Amino acid sequence: MTALPDTEGGTPAAEQSPAGPRPRARRRRDTEHRLAHDVDVWVASSAPDGTPYLVPLSFWWDGTALWVATPAESPTGRNLAATGAARLALGRTRDVTVIDGAVEAFELDALPAEHGDRFAARSGFDPRGPATRYRWFRITPRRIQAWREVNELRGRDLMRDGRWLE
Amino acid sequence: MTALPDTEGGTPAAEQSPAGPRPRARRRRDTEHRLAHDVDVWVASSAPDGTPYLVPLSFWWDGTALWVATPAESPTGRNLAATGAARLALGRTRDVTVIDGAVEAFELDALPAEHGDRFAARSGFDPRGPATRYRWFRITPRRIQAWREVNELRGRDLMRDGRWLE
Repeated sequence: MTALPDTEGGTPAAEQSPAGPRPRARRRRDTEHRLAHDVDVWVASSAPDGTPYLVPLSFWWDGTALWVATPAESPTGRNLAATGAARLALGRTRDVTVIDGAVEAFELDALPAEHGDRFAARSGFDPRGPATRYRWFRITPRRIQAWREVNELRGRDLMRDGRWLE
Repeated sequence: MTALPDTEGGTPAAEQSPAGPRPRARRRRDTEHRLAHDVDVWVASSAPDGTPYLVPLSFWWDGTALWVATPAESPTGRNLAATGAARLALGRTRDVTVIDGAVEAFELDALPAEHGDRFAARSGFDPRGPATRYRWFRITPRRIQAWREVNELRGRDLMRDGRWLE
């Protein structure tokens, strides 16, 4: 297995797709398909003291950012509000899209009803119903990477500094 | 959807299994099966300043702890060594096992060859080969939770303080 300085994970050579690594444009299309169609995303966050957290959450992609909803007092809710940073993963361990995003928190009633309606329709979950105080969190991608097998570790950057790469 | 104070995620009621929530003993068996048979795990870690990180890594479960290997200078390698904490997820977003673990780092040659052989056989990856400086990381579970739909949010604790619950 080729070891790059920041290489982590990747499928052993014996399992690599015979079709070869996907070109960037293809990986971007696969990623955009997931953003538009997947229901859940893994959300990694941190407490200010460096304690890691990870949960799956339902989300809605508005074309520019992912929206999730979680109780303000949950570990994720506190972490996202405190640090403004999230790292997300879509897909499976051997077919991943990883997103580093900047996070903004919003009170539920700070956004129009239509926003909540679209979120609920996409994710199957309406946070405006429960009694516990939920918040919206908008996660804007700054960096996006997508890879499958070890032969896709090179060329995995799709977005840097918030801009899709050509 | 029932909202518990620290509830995050969970499948809408319409998709819950008609069989009802799994008993704890069943969830433990399912979790132990994953530990013994899955190849990859999601590893969430943090930098000391609270920057979150998340990657999939191959692992080996020795019956007490999970072992992963990653370059010492990778973000995960640095985070795990600096904070001694990891949060792991096995499975899918709607059928999860989440593990909070304490982490110890070991140089590759600090453990007998048999250890590396068993890791390589289980994970399909031998970190002793590549030129980049890899390290072993032993992740000992302190807390384990398993849940699927929202009706499984209650009763999701399987281990606390390093001890399996009865």
